[in-house]
Amino acid sequence: MPDTSLLDTFPTPTETPLLIEHVNEEFTSVCPVTGHPDFGTVTIRFEPGPSCVELKSLKLYFQSFRNEGIYYEAVTDRIRDDLVECMKPHWLQVVTQWRGRGGIRSRIVAGHGKVPSDWARG
Amino acid sequence: MPDTSLLDTFPTPTETPLLIEHVNEEFTSVCPVTGHPDFGTVTIRFEPGPSCVELKSLKLYFQSFRNEGIYYEAVTDRIRDDLVECMKPHWLQVVTQWRGRGGIRSRIVAGHGKVPSDWARG
Amino acid sequence: MPDTSLLDTFPTPTETPLLIEHVNEEFTSVCPVTGHPDFGTVTIRFEPGPSCVELKSLKLYFQSFRNEGIYYEAVTDRIRDDLVECMKPHWLQVVTQWRGRGGIRSRIVAGHGKVPSDWARG
Amino acid sequence: MPDTSLLDTFPTPTETPLLIEHVNEEFTSVCPVTGHPDFGTVTIRFEPGPSCVELKSLKLYFQSFRNEGIYYEAVTDRIRDDLVECMKPHWLQVVTQWRGRGGIRSRIVAGHGKVPSDWARG
Amino acid sequence: MPDTSLLDTFPTPTETPLLIEHVNEEFTSVCPVTGHPDFGTVTIRFEPGPSCVELKSLKLYFQSFRNEGIYYEAVTDRIRDDLVECMKPHWLQVVTQWRGRGGIRSRIVAGHGKVPSDWARG
Amino acid sequence: MPDTSLLDTFPTPTETPLLIEHVNEEFTSVCPVTGHPDFGTVTIRFEPGPSCVELKSLKLYFQSFRNEGIYYEAVTDRIRDDLVECMKPHWLQVVTQWRGRGGIRSRIVAGHGKVPSDWARG
Amino acid sequence: MPDTSLLDTFPTPTETPLLIEHVNEEFTSVCPVTGHPDFGTVTIRFEPGPSCVELKSLKLYFQSFRNEGIYYEAVTDRIRDDLVECMKPHWLQVVTQWRGRGGIRSRIVAGHGKVPSDWARG
Amino acid sequence: MPDTSLLDTFPTPTETPLLIEHVNEEFTSVCPVTGHPDFGTVTIRFEPGPSCVELKSLKLYFQSFRNEGIYYEAVTDRIRDDLVECMKPHWLQVVTQWRGRGGIRSRIVAGHGKVPSDWARG
Amino acid sequence: MPDTSLLDTFPTPTETPLLIEHVNEEFTSVCPVTGHPDFGTVTIRFEPGPSCVELKSLKLYFQSFRNEGIYYEAVTDRIRDDLVECMKPHWLQVVTQWRGRGGIRSRIVAGHGKVPSDWARG
Amino acid sequence: MPDTSLLDTFPTPTETPLLIEHVNEEFTSVCPVTGHPDFGTVTIRFEPGPSCVELKSLKLYFQSFRNEGIYYEAVTDRIRDDLVECMKPHWLQVVTQWRGRGGIRSRIVAGHGKVPSDWARG
Repeated sequence: MPDTSLLDTFPTPTETPLLIEHVNEEFTSVCPVTGHPDFGTVTIRFEPGPSCVELKSLKLYFQSFRNEGIYYEAVTDRIRDDLVECMKPHWLQVVTQWRGRGGIRSRIVAGHGKVPSDWARG
Repeated sequence: MPDTSLLDTFPTPTETPLLIEHVNEEFTSVCPVTGHPDFGTVTIRFEPGPSCVELKSLKLYFQSFRNEGIYYEAVTDRIRDDLVECMKPHWLQVVTQWRGRGGIRSRIVAGHGKVPSDWARG
Repeated sequence: MPDTSLLDTFPTPTETPLLIEHVNEEFTSVCPVTGHPDFGTVTIRFEPGPSCVELKSLKLYFQSFRNEGIYYEAVTDRIRDDLVECMKPHWLQVVTQWRGRGGIRSRIVAGHGKVPSDWARG
Repeated sequence: MPDTSLLDTFPTPTETPLLIEHVNEEFTSVCPVTGHPDFGTVTIRFEPGPSCVELKSLKLYFQSFRNEGIYYEAVTDRIRDDLVECMKPHWLQVVTQWRGRGGIRSRIVAGHGKVPSDWARG
Repeated sequence: MPDTSLLDTFPTPTETPLLIEHVNEEFTSVCPVTGHPDFGTVTIRFEPGPSCVELKSLKLYFQSFRNEGIYYEAVTDRIRDDLVECMKPHWLQVVTQWRGRGGIRSRIVAGHGKVPSDWARG
Repeated sequence: MPDTSLLDTFPTPTETPLLIEHVNEEFTSVCPVTGHPDFGTVTIRFEPGPSCVELKSLKLYFQSFRNEGIYYEAVTDRIRDDLVECMKPHWLQVVTQWRGRGGIRSRIVAGHGKVPSDWARG
Repeated sequence: MPDTSLLDTFPTPTETPLLIEHVNEEFTSVCPVTGHPDFGTVTIRFEPGPSCVELKSLKLYFQSFRNEGIYYEAVTDRIRDDLVECMKPHWLQVVTQWRGRGGIRSRIVAGHGKVPSDWARG
Repeated sequence: MPDTSLLDTFPTPTETPLLIEHVNEEFTSVCPVTGHPDFGTVTIRFEPGPSCVELKSLKLYFQSFRNEGIYYEAVTDRIRDDLVECMKPHWLQVVTQWRGRGGIRSRIVAGHGKVPSDWARG
Repeated sequence: MPDTSLLDTFPTPTETPLLIEHVNEEFTSVCPVTGHPDFGTVTIRFEPGPSCVELKSLKLYFQSFRNEGIYYEAVTDRIRDDLVECMKPHWLQVVTQWRGRGGIRSRIVAGHGKVPSDWARG
Repeated sequence: MPDTSLLDTFPTPTETPLLIEHVNEEFTSVCPVTGHPDFGTVTIRFEPGPSCVELKSLKLYFQSFRNEGIYYEAVTDRIRDDLVECMKPHWLQVVTQWRGRGGIRSRIVAGHGKVPSDWARG
């Protein structure tokens, strides 16, 4: 099971707003129907509240999906919920992009809070 | 004939809004005038309502256009109508891009509902 | 002379709005001052009114500029006027991009009507 | 010295608004401090008023900076001022991009008038 | 320690607004936890107030981070604060992009003031 | 069935050696096991003997594979045999590249005669 | 354990030589020291002897490395040995490319038999 | 008719061997069957003998094909013959690449003399 | 000083020949004349003898150049000598590519032994 | 006049063979006929004899062509001769690539000595 106990945080180091993006191009889980592996890229973007997720813990958390049978939509939704709970961010967005099956590749976006106006320009 | 009975759906797995994109780079139909094959990419994007289209059924539905004589505009319009009917999405957009004939390549966009403000930033 | 009689149309196949783009990467005309050929790409984008320009007729219309001595700006303006007259579109945009002379490459944009809000996101 | 007498114009060929972009990827001037050459790309974009700058004269004007000792910011500002004076455009934007010195590459934007809403979409 | 005394400025050469971007693709500092080097690109964008940062001094300032143990977020925040203090810009944005550790690459954005509306179109 | 009667030739227009390459990026056939369509690019290269294949006839010949259930290897082998028979070339090479199934993409090469020493340098 | 019993073959469909390449961009195994996952691309190229590996069985065989703790060099060597044993090819080459750890990415090549002279030109 | 009288030469400026390549990405002629324009890139490479073709004359010579009805193979062969006659080069190679008709793009190579061993490495 | 004691090896895991490449895109040292940092990519390729360099030790070895004042040529030569001494490879090649100073970027190649004929084709 | 007195050398730091490449993407000279500037990239590759050209002196030497009226072929030939004289290399190759005039871009190669067999593989 994806394991939220792996997620660590550290206090946000400044009160001036920051926007942060982490991209993991080495995400894999398993299709719950066929049992074949899925490969994708997971991008998280956030404006931190009181704390930020620690990078090594984030890596281990992502790795805990490796042998989990789970749909694209559920992966995306689950990561959003877990990170919102552990960081309490002002804004968070999770984007998953999948290499595809049967000639169709997919992208799923899940959000929390209002997109900061500076983001698109950064 | 493109066959809407091939389309299956599953219940949207969360009430928190998601945005979903599926890209099929292996679409082919036939020009109704010349009988020559057309090749293109079909992209669908949507904010699901109660249900989401199932990926394997979507692939088979796209394949049912293979030997259909049908214009670019009609392909795009037809996919929009069929997906709106089977998914009842809050928003749906169909974009078809065609490799072209006679040195001219084309792109057609058909929409349903209002583009979510988060999309462009995801 | 560019020949508008070459342009054919067909009735727009749906009342639901479509956005359409045709790109011709094989456009050539002649510089009216030096007599040297100009090479460029012509893109037209439109939201159709009652009728759409037929693709083969559009190709022949573009070819009729081949030996015409005409400036970049006049090519762009002329295509806009001819297509507005034959299609009566809700919106039309013509973009010409030129490979350039003397180390300077150029792009000219001519519009008719208001850009649909969905375009940038399609 | 950059030589504005080189700049010629011709009357804008239509009263319907056009947007025009010229890109010169072969711009060079000299750093006033070190005497080393600077290399860059100069892009001008404008919505013409009564007249448009003639392309060959623009090339010669750009070439007149070749042995001029002048800072990035001053090049950009000077081109804006000279073109505004000779064309009286409704809108003008000058963007200079520099290959850089000491591992840092730079981009400078100078504007005149309000960016037309159609530009970003053209 | 990053050394702000290295930063020199020169008076902004025009009262007409300019937008300026400097990109340093050769930034390196050290991870405070593991002691391993971090490599990234630092981009600064600003609308100058009374003075602009001098390029060579900016390069030396960036080099002073070379053997500093410092987190991504702190690098970004520190550069913003130092440049705001020495230039008093109307607007400043610092974007750091990091090649990543453990398969995750990151991007941090820190801002000061309101993004000028012309920026996205420049 | 792939239809060799579609293939026309014309006499090679010169006795001085030529090397010729035709690339068709719009090839499709059907997997004989699953019935799903395969999509690929077919490249033919040859040094002509007495005759060259005519381009329009080549296009129609490739289209005759559209609904044929046939393996990658057999497509490649078949095209080689058919073109050798109709053109009697000094050298012929057929390369098929396939978009892939189940995350694996493939390339098959079939040859006839000795590769001309000039080819790699052309 | 990587499972060679998964590998199926079919008789080579022609006696005329073919060269075949299969590329799997979704390979993953586990580092035997750290336990972290490795991600890479595996390319196999061969001139078949009496039989060719069947694609679906190849996919399942590659998937059987998913949770195996194994070094880059051993993966490459193992795949070569297993495929040589099951196919008896005239020539076989295995190339593994790895996304890397600690900022270093790697490529390993293992061969069997003499590279066919036509390969580089195909 | 393509006009060889347009071709001028100048004496090769050194007796030490040079290898020279000129690439014209703006070539157009007309299909002799359909009357539709063909667009392509013409590359010439040579080791000069006593004289080299002058660049402006080469451009005018290429332009003289503009309204000529002529096949791909004949264009390539004709340029080889004309340049061999006017330059007497030690080696010459003509490569034409065509944007294609009916989804098939082509490349033709015509040579004269032996490819210098240094070329591939230059 | 670059520290060869950091280099560890492990026994080559097979007697069948392997070719191995490691690419480090995060190399930095210091110019011995100006004191400014140099940034580059170091590629090593080898056919192992009795032992292979261990990846983590290679990373630490490369990091030991970080504050060393050393020329491009000496870096390349030094790495070759150190790796030949610790691995006794049948073949070794070191390629360094440098982002450059003063608008000139450089590449240095140092070799040991004869390049295996299979390399270029792998 | 291009000024060879600007060229400095330093003793080759090792007796083991090195191959060295320097690429200057910021070369400019003047067309002797039209007086318009030419822009290009100059690449030099060599296997050093007793001495290597010093990088800063090479940059100044290249800059001394800035206002020289000189043909492409003569630039290439001149650089070869000057560098052979000052370095006495075992092998030297000069490649100039020019952005072009009138739609034709050019590349000139001048060599001295025999290309080392390792070069193409480095």
